[in-house]
Amino acid sequence: MDTKNQGLRGVVVADTKISNIDGARGRLFYRGYDIADLAEKSNFEEVAYLLLHDDLPTSEDLSQFRSALIEARRIPKQMQINMGNWRKDADPMDMLQAFVAALAGYYDEEFSSKEASYDRATNLVGKVPTIVASWQRLRNGLDLIDMDPDVGHAANFLYMMTGERPDAETEKIFDTCLILHADHTFNASTFTARQVASTRAHMYSAASAAIGSLSGELHGGANYEVMRMLLDIGSADGVDEWIGARMDAGGRIMGMGHAVYRTYDPRARILKEMSRRLAEKTGEPWFEITERVERAAIREMRERKGIDIYPNVDLYSASLYYMLGIPMDLNTPIFAISRVAGWAAHVIEEKFAEAAPKPALYRPKAAYVGKDCGPDGCEYKPLNLRK
Amino acid sequence: MDTKNQGLRGVVVADTKISNIDGARGRLFYRGYDIADLAEKSNFEEVAYLLLHDDLPTSEDLSQFRSALIEARRIPKQMQINMGNWRKDADPMDMLQAFVAALAGYYDEEFSSKEASYDRATNLVGKVPTIVASWQRLRNGLDLIDMDPDVGHAANFLYMMTGERPDAETEKIFDTCLILHADHTFNASTFTARQVASTRAHMYSAASAAIGSLSGELHGGANYEVMRMLLDIGSADGVDEWIGARMDAGGRIMGMGHAVYRTYDPRARILKEMSRRLAEKTGEPWFEITERVERAAIREMRERKGIDIYPNVDLYSASLYYMLGIPMDLNTPIFAISRVAGWAAHVIEEKFAEAAPKPALYRPKAAYVGKDCGPDGCEYKPLNLRK
Repeated sequence: MDTKNQGLRGVVVADTKISNIDGARGRLFYRGYDIADLAEKSNFEEVAYLLLHDDLPTSEDLSQFRSALIEARRIPKQMQINMGNWRKDADPMDMLQAFVAALAGYYDEEFSSKEASYDRATNLVGKVPTIVASWQRLRNGLDLIDMDPDVGHAANFLYMMTGERPDAETEKIFDTCLILHADHTFNASTFTARQVASTRAHMYSAASAAIGSLSGELHGGANYEVMRMLLDIGSADGVDEWIGARMDAGGRIMGMGHAVYRTYDPRARILKEMSRRLAEKTGEPWFEITERVERAAIREMRERKGIDIYPNVDLYSASLYYMLGIPMDLNTPIFAISRVAGWAAHVIEEKFAEAAPKPALYRPKAAYVGKDCGPDGCEYKPLNLRK
Repeated sequence: MDTKNQGLRGVVVADTKISNIDGARGRLFYRGYDIADLAEKSNFEEVAYLLLHDDLPTSEDLSQFRSALIEARRIPKQMQINMGNWRKDADPMDMLQAFVAALAGYYDEEFSSKEASYDRATNLVGKVPTIVASWQRLRNGLDLIDMDPDVGHAANFLYMMTGERPDAETEKIFDTCLILHADHTFNASTFTARQVASTRAHMYSAASAAIGSLSGELHGGANYEVMRMLLDIGSADGVDEWIGARMDAGGRIMGMGHAVYRTYDPRARILKEMSRRLAEKTGEPWFEITERVERAAIREMRERKGIDIYPNVDLYSASLYYMLGIPMDLNTPIFAISRVAGWAAHVIEEKFAEAAPKPALYRPKAAYVGKDCGPDGCEYKPLNLRK
C-alpha cells in the first residue's frame, strides 16, 4: 500500500454530532460545549446526558436520568459470583471486557429499537463503575459494598471501591476527571465501538470490544504506563537523566504527544492544575516529577528533533489518580468508566443516524503482498512431498 | 463527509500476506493456495497452520501443531462453573465474546513476544470450539464431555457437543465448512481484531472484540438469519411468493450478494454441493428451498434492478448446518470456531509486520456536523435557566 491511509490518519469515515476537536487552538467540545466550561460548571451525569442526547438536560430530564443511573448501579448476584471465581491477579481490563460482554447475558431481551439502546446506555454508564469497584474489593478479599443512592456518580464509585465516602474536594476532582475523559471523537476505542455496531451487533458487544481497544498501551493503557514511568523515575532530581536516557534509546515518553492536538491538550491543562492542588494538599512528589517530565520531554524533543510536543490526557491523570489512592492498574478501567458514555453515544449515532450519508458496515481493503503463484494459486503438494 | 469513504469501501488500510480475493473471477486464496484445492485436499488443522505461518506445514510441523491444538482443547474448571451460572437463554455469541475475553484471566502471563502470540493463537483455535460445545451442553442441562484426543478438530467439536462421534462423511463436510470460513482478508470482524491489536491490546482481547463484530446480522449473524428465512418459507412451493413479497417491501434477501465478489462466491459453490449431497442423503427439503431462494433472488434482482447478485457464504451454510443437526443459533459461533484462525493470523501480522509500511494505530477522522456556537462554544446555562 502507499502510506497515505496508514492508521487511517486523516481519512474521514463518518459524520458526527457528538464531539469536535479544534486541534490548532487546543479546544475540545462536547455537543458544541467547551469542555473547560463543562469541567468547571457541570458534572458527569449531566455530561453523560449531553453526549447521549443532543443538548444539556432540563431539571426534569436530569432528575430522571440520575434516577435511572442510580437504579442501574447494581449488577446481578451471579455476576458477582462469577467475578469472585476469577484469578485474583487477572488484569482488570480483561475482567472488564469480559463482564461488560456478559451484561448481555442478563439484560438483553430487545435489541433493535433506539429506545432500547438508550436503556442499555444507561445500564452501561451505571454498571461499569460497579464492575470495576467490585473487582477491586473481590481481588483483595473484601466484602462487596452496596451502592449509595444518596451520592453522585463519582462519589459512589469511590465509595463502592474503598468503603469510604470521599470529601467534597476529592469528589469534585474525580468527577472532573470523568468529565474530561468522556469523549474524544473517533479515537481508537470509539472507532472500535462504532465498527462493531456497524455490523448491527448490540451495544454491550460494542462496548466490550471498545474496552479491549482501550486496554492497549498506545491508547488507554498509556495512563498506566505513565505511572510506571513516574515510579521508575522516583524523584524530581532523577527526571532529566531518565528522560535523556530514554530518548537516547529511541523510546517514547508516555503521556506526551497527541495525534490531533498541535498545542496543549485542553484536558491536560485542567488535569495539571488539579494535580498541582492535590500535591500541595498531600505533600506528595508526583506532581513535581510529572511537571519535570513535561519540561524535559519538551526540551529534548525540541533540541533533538526540532519538534514541539505537549502533554496529553494521560500525563497528569496518572499522578492525580495515584494521589487519590487509586491502584495504578485501575487507571485504564477508570478511563473506561468515563469513556463508556461516549462509546454509547457513538453506538447510537452509528446505528440510528437519520441524515445521509448513513453509516455503512466498515469493510476496508488490504493490499495483498504475499505469495503469488499465478491465477490458479500455488500447487498443493501432499504432506509427504513437502519439505 | 462526502461518501467516498463510506464504510471504508475500497480504502486500502494495510498490507497483508494472509489471504487474497479475486473478486472478478470468484477465487479466494489463503497464503497463495486456492481454497477450492484446500477444501478438497486439506483439513482444518493444516489450514489453520497455513494461515498462521507462511506456508503449509511439513509432517513434523503438522504433528507438533496438532498435539498443541489437542492440548489446548480443555478449558479451566472455573470457566465451566462460570458458564453454568449464565442465563440458559443467553445468546451464544454473547457468551462466546465474554468467555474468550475471560481466557486472558487464565492464560495471559506474557504478552509482548511474537512466540507468545503463537501460543495464544493455538489456545484460541483449540478452545473456542470447546467453549461453544460446553455452552450447548450446559444450557441443555447436560453433562460436559471431555475432548477426545484421538479425533481431529472438526470431529472433536461435534463429539463434545453431541456426545456422538460423527461418521466420516459428516466429519469431512464439517471440516470443509471450517476450511471455507477460516479467513477472508479484511472483513468486518478481522478488521476489528486488527484494530484492537493496533493499540497493542493482546490477542484474546482482539479475538473477543472480533466475535462481537461477527455477531452482527450484517456480518456473521447472517447465517442465522438465512435459516430463519428458510424456516419461515417452509416449503419449496412458497419460495417465489415469499421472495417477491420481501422485495416488494424493500427487504434484503439474506445470504445473497457480497461486497467484494462480482461473480459466484467460491465458498458458496462448494457449500452448495455439500448441501445438495446431504439433502439427498437425509431427504430433507432445505437444499431445494435454498436453491429456489437463490434462483428467485437472482431473477427478481435482474428484473427489478438490472443487477446480478449471487449467493454468499451464508446461504448454503445455513441449510448445511441445519441438516447436520446443529441448533441454528450456533451457526454464527461455528463461523467463529473457524474464523478465529484467521483473526489470530491477522493479529500477529498487525503486531509483528516486518516490512514497511508498518501498521499504525487506526484512528480515522470524523466530519463534525453538530452544533456550532462559534470558536468559544455554546453558552453553558445553569440548570434553572434551561428549558
